[in-house]
Amino acid sequence: MANKTPKTDTLQIIPLGGIGEIGKNMTAIRCGDQIVVIDCGLSFPGAEQLGVDLVIPDISYLLEHKEMVQGIILTHGHEDHIGALAFVLKELNVPVYGTRLTIGFTKGKLAEHRVLDKAKLHVFSANDKFRLGIFEIEPFRVAHSIPDAVGFAVHTPAGTLVHTGDFKFDQTPVDGQLFDIAKLTRIGQEGVLVLLSDCTNVERPGFVPSEATVAGALENIFRAAQRRVIMACFASNVHRVQTAIDMSVKYGRKVALMGRSMERNMEMAQQMGYLRVPEGTRIRADEIEDYFPQQVTVITTGSQGEPMAALSRMAVDDHRKIKIVPGDTVILAASAVPGNEDAVWRTVNHLFRRGAEVIYDSIAPVHVSGHGYAEELKLMLNLVDPQYVMPVHGEYRMLHRYAQIAGEMGWPQEDVIRGEIGDIIEVSEEVAGVVGRVEKSGAVLIDGTGIGDVSEIVLRDRLHIGQDGFLVLVVGVSAETGEIVSGPEVISRGFVYMDQSEALVEEIKTVIIEKIKNLPEEDNDWMVVQQDLRDAVGKFLYKKTQRRPMILPILLDL
Amino acid sequence: MANKTPKTDTLQIIPLGGIGEIGKNMTAIRCGDQIVVIDCGLSFPGAEQLGVDLVIPDISYLLEHKEMVQGIILTHGHEDHIGALAFVLKELNVPVYGTRLTIGFTKGKLAEHRVLDKAKLHVFSANDKFRLGIFEIEPFRVAHSIPDAVGFAVHTPAGTLVHTGDFKFDQTPVDGQLFDIAKLTRIGQEGVLVLLSDCTNVERPGFVPSEATVAGALENIFRAAQRRVIMACFASNVHRVQTAIDMSVKYGRKVALMGRSMERNMEMAQQMGYLRVPEGTRIRADEIEDYFPQQVTVITTGSQGEPMAALSRMAVDDHRKIKIVPGDTVILAASAVPGNEDAVWRTVNHLFRRGAEVIYDSIAPVHVSGHGYAEELKLMLNLVDPQYVMPVHGEYRMLHRYAQIAGEMGWPQEDVIRGEIGDIIEVSEEVAGVVGRVEKSGAVLIDGTGIGDVSEIVLRDRLHIGQDGFLVLVVGVSAETGEIVSGPEVISRGFVYMDQSEALVEEIKTVIIEKIKNLPEEDNDWMVVQQDLRDAVGKFLYKKTQRRPMILPILLDL
Repeated sequence: MANKTPKTDTLQIIPLGGIGEIGKNMTAIRCGDQIVVIDCGLSFPGAEQLGVDLVIPDISYLLEHKEMVQGIILTHGHEDHIGALAFVLKELNVPVYGTRLTIGFTKGKLAEHRVLDKAKLHVFSANDKFRLGIFEIEPFRVAHSIPDAVGFAVHTPAGTLVHTGDFKFDQTPVDGQLFDIAKLTRIGQEGVLVLLSDCTNVERPGFVPSEATVAGALENIFRAAQRRVIMACFASNVHRVQTAIDMSVKYGRKVALMGRSMERNMEMAQQMGYLRVPEGTRIRADEIEDYFPQQVTVITTGSQGEPMAALSRMAVDDHRKIKIVPGDTVILAASAVPGNEDAVWRTVNHLFRRGAEVIYDSIAPVHVSGHGYAEELKLMLNLVDPQYVMPVHGEYRMLHRYAQIAGEMGWPQEDVIRGEIGDIIEVSEEVAGVVGRVEKSGAVLIDGTGIGDVSEIVLRDRLHIGQDGFLVLVVGVSAETGEIVSGPEVISRGFVYMDQSEALVEEIKTVIIEKIKNLPEEDNDWMVVQQDLRDAVGKFLYKKTQRRPMILPILLDL
Repeated sequence: MANKTPKTDTLQIIPLGGIGEIGKNMTAIRCGDQIVVIDCGLSFPGAEQLGVDLVIPDISYLLEHKEMVQGIILTHGHEDHIGALAFVLKELNVPVYGTRLTIGFTKGKLAEHRVLDKAKLHVFSANDKFRLGIFEIEPFRVAHSIPDAVGFAVHTPAGTLVHTGDFKFDQTPVDGQLFDIAKLTRIGQEGVLVLLSDCTNVERPGFVPSEATVAGALENIFRAAQRRVIMACFASNVHRVQTAIDMSVKYGRKVALMGRSMERNMEMAQQMGYLRVPEGTRIRADEIEDYFPQQVTVITTGSQGEPMAALSRMAVDDHRKIKIVPGDTVILAASAVPGNEDAVWRTVNHLFRRGAEVIYDSIAPVHVSGHGYAEELKLMLNLVDPQYVMPVHGEYRMLHRYAQIAGEMGWPQEDVIRGEIGDIIEVSEEVAGVVGRVEKSGAVLIDGTGIGDVSEIVLRDRLHIGQDGFLVLVVGVSAETGEIVSGPEVISRGFVYMDQSEALVEEIKTVIIEKIKNLPEEDNDWMVVQQDLRDAVGKFLYKKTQRRPMILPILLDL
């Protein structure tokens, strides 16, 4: 099915990431023989993906249909929406479209990976419409935890698809840029075939609090703080940094920015007019000591407990410029991304040990989510009033919950599309559903900036040796006599029992010597002998220790 | 300080686990030359503790003072309070005291580890007082998420110490056994020198809901369920299993228990009279198919997403006896222990994919905590009214928050003791504070049932090879000519770049050959040559790949 060109009265939706999971958002929309891609994000590895730095979508489907791809359109500048571009553009250098700040942040990422030169980046305004092949793209402004975020109406010959991007309905956004409900309503009234809706927070009832509520919490903290205020948040959270700067100005504090990504993003945002920093407010890190503690605010990275980030270093007293002292106030203005909880709490505990007063979201409302809660998802569905609806940006349980809510609102369950990564979903006025699967899709694991992805085999080996360690057995055997002329040597790392028992090494050597001695005459296939050795030593060790370290026998033919 | 015998008008408190952390609770109380130990628990490894199965307290201090230890007294039968006994008793076979169910569960654990024979186990009732050397132990009944839980008043010549154990003030406990507030009040009125208080839930305001509220939520689910009900909870949660059994009886269902620890614990609890199972209610797993789906309840392990547990197997359709089908109701009647969130949500998502209706605590109140919230901690403090107070069973931030609350209640901050593992804390009527540190304390990492603990070196090696993989370089050199007569062979596992590049292997071989060729004449110390090879190949690989795999050079002298 993957290669059959659909008619232009039918839309195909092919999720390549960000469905059945949170992160690495990427969706291909195909009409006839043209494709437009929405977002190109990354995610971070799970605990068992040892040594993996980043995870990006597998874009094999797009590479197979390279000539069809008209471009990539971006909803906003978060890592899980733009972070894979630096890798994807190397293989698929199509035009990329985004709002000013989104393209600004994208440029920063691409420059870091040295792929900016060849990238074809285009800025649109949330008020523009633009054409990509047969697709007419109509962005609409949404509210989110980063400025300049949009959703898209994609008008096609088969009908209109609306993709919400990440959104909330914030009536008091920090930058005053309201969700363009008027435009969305108009699009809805003109008729929408299918809505792809953010469902990340579908399990939370009601409406998410406005970003403006954070200002109230921060004001209380700034008013009471006797010494330095150190606030950590995501390096892209322009709104929250703006609020902290506003409070600093109000309470007579200078502001220093810490952390490479924080400095880079905020300088970009300031240059582009998204961040207002009054003249004379910002100071350099090495000027902090020139001011009294009550005159200083530090805004820093490290809200996720990342070991190398500025706040984490301060927490263990390993930061070159800032030493936490009793009386400092530290604000964690972000929630822990799932998987980071341990690291975040470790940082908080260390900060308390150093005498700081640490404030996090269970103590005061210093963080609100950028994703709308259940009532907002319902409002979106009512405004757009699509024929079909497909929840995205959620784990399966959230897609399921969204389908229930849509059901309660009157959408028959057959009109709610539950997609998985790699599904080919066809939507026309008559019918919608999964019609096939692309050949290859899923996750590409990135180790470093490097050569490519981490294969299943490498990952499986890492888990094996990481948990049980390994043994190398080296033995040199005479080609003439079949007798051992060198070794056996036994070397191990990470195998707990070898660490403690020389006797065990000797026993293993005996197993090897016995095995070699008793080789059948005709057995001169070294591969077979190595396998035999592995089996014999493996069996012996399991009996002795109930453990299965990796065993690497090396036979030298001398 | 550690070895100076304190006078008997002074108490020493030496936390060996369960402070500055959640888990592996163990506290030594010393008066003169006698020691009593409260609890002996384990914890589970963090994500970076690769291949570690369990973590237990380092008891070096107790082994150094073996002859002083009068016994171990247990507050209740949870793993984080009894789980280290099987390891500790091998080295320190002192008498162990607990209530009936606690000793029952302890016996099960000790039998599993084959150390039951020699263990000296003693049962006390919550109404008994008993003497251990100079200590008079007075238990008092508390409410918690397991029956037969107590706290202790430890009367000593230096004054009375109260340890709350884990507790909540539940006014409607499932087993009808109320917190013995009368006794606690009397102990408080007689004068308490120091209170060691559970502070796990100090960050949550108000009172924790009663275990009885879970019954209401379960009743709604049982009433509505059209097919099987499958409930997962901790294998020690007798109260919740009782509630599910009661609801099953009420709604005409038979009950099957799944999972080895669930079956073992509940059989023990039933035999001892802590679990009431009406005649004819329980069925075996292989009888499930004999009943209509609406006549069956399954109570199972796996609430933490443990890969081998029954529920996790059902979720991936890998359970021998139960296949999840659309219409089944699955209840997760437990919250995810920090670190297990990923595994729990993965299980939930898979269950939804199979068509089950999954109910977890954000959907309905099917779980309540066993630890009191802030108002309960305050009530405890007021009832006991100690001279000094020391929060335990919390990470540092919780200890800090508890100290704030105690401060608000009128305890001067110098009377609030903030301990760390290994501190020697002296308490007398005049003064309380840290006076020293024991020589060795902290965590012992257990890999398997086995020989002993995982050393720092093994763990560091595992992290290294787990994240970056390793290379083995084997080369045979003639002792006479110094020339290579075998190899070089290069073998790697878990190193991402080798997986993809034969050219890289050849380049490494060239580096080795060059290095051997250019050895200085006098350089015949193989250790030095191996180190040189490691450095040369390491440097080459870092330049090529920005990665530092472990490198093991093996030189054979032929």
